[in-house]
Amino acid sequence: MIRHLEERDYNSIISVIDEWWGGREMSHLLPRIFFVHFRPTSFAVEESGRVIGFLAGFVSQTDPQQAYIHFVGIHPEHRKRGLGRRLYTHFFDTVGGLGCKIVRCITSPVNKNSIAFHTRMGFKIEHVAGDCDGVPCTPNYELNGENRVLFVKVL
Amino acid sequence: MIRHLEERDYNSIISVIDEWWGGREMSHLLPRIFFVHFRPTSFAVEESGRVIGFLAGFVSQTDPQQAYIHFVGIHPEHRKRGLGRRLYTHFFDTVGGLGCKIVRCITSPVNKNSIAFHTRMGFKIEHVAGDCDGVPCTPNYELNGENRVLFVKVL
Repeated sequence: MIRHLEERDYNSIISVIDEWWGGREMSHLLPRIFFVHFRPTSFAVEESGRVIGFLAGFVSQTDPQQAYIHFVGIHPEHRKRGLGRRLYTHFFDTVGGLGCKIVRCITSPVNKNSIAFHTRMGFKIEHVAGDCDGVPCTPNYELNGENRVLFVKVL
Repeated sequence: MIRHLEERDYNSIISVIDEWWGGREMSHLLPRIFFVHFRPTSFAVEESGRVIGFLAGFVSQTDPQQAYIHFVGIHPEHRKRGLGRRLYTHFFDTVGGLGCKIVRCITSPVNKNSIAFHTRMGFKIEHVAGDCDGVPCTPNYELNGENRVLFVKVL
C-alpha cells in the first residue's frame, strides 16, 4: 500500500535509515522538515503496519515545472520486489498531475545500485564535469569537495 | 542590498558557514538544493560584492498558508546592524504576498542568541514538551535524541 509520508513516520524511519543504507550515515540528510512540509509529493509503502520503503520529494519552487526526489529508502529485506519502481512511478504520476515536466535527483558516485536503478527508470546523467571511479559526475557539487551524479528525466 | 539567493552563492557560503557559526559544524544542514529550488523565498544581503548574510526559506507544500525558515547566517563582523531583522522582514513580506499566514522555524536550545532574536521578532515557542537548560523545548525532535526549540509567528 502506498500512502503519503507523514510526520509521525519520522522517528521510526530515522532510527533505521543508516542500517537500511548498510551503515552509511545518512540520517542527517533527512531532517524532519521533509516529513512535515512536503507531504503532497512524499510517499511511504506500508506492509503489515510497517513502513518498508519511502520517497521524500518536492516540486521546485524556483521552477514549478521541475520536481526533485530528495531521498529514497527501501528496507533491505524488501528489495528486488519493485517497491522503488512503484514509489518512483507514483511520484512521477503525482508531480505530472501538478504540472511538472521533468524530475531531477542526485546520487553519490559510490552508489552503483542507485545509478543502475535510475538508469533503468529512464534518468540520464547531466552536467557531467568529471569522472568519479568510472562514473560521469559533477565533482565538488556538495559541501567542500563531495562529488555527485546528477540525474534528470523528462516525464 | 537584498537580492534572491542563487545557486552560484553555494560554494562561497558553504565554505564560511561553520566559521560564521563559531566553529559549529552546520554546513551539512544546508545542502545545495536550498540554493536551487527555493529561490522565490530565499535571500542574500550583498555588500561590496560579498554576501554578508542570507536566509533560506520556503512555503510549506503540505500547508501553503505556512512558511518555514530553514537556515539563516550573518557574517560575524556584520552583526548588530539589523541585517537579520531586514532578512526576516523581507521574508515575511514575500511569503505574506504568497498567501502565507504563519511562519515557523526551529533552533537549538544551546543557541541563546537565536532564541532572543526570534523572541524580539515576535515568534512564540510552541509544542513545548520539556525544558532544555532553562529553555522550553521539544525533546528528541531531530535525529535520535536531539532537542529543538520550535518557533511560530502569526503574520
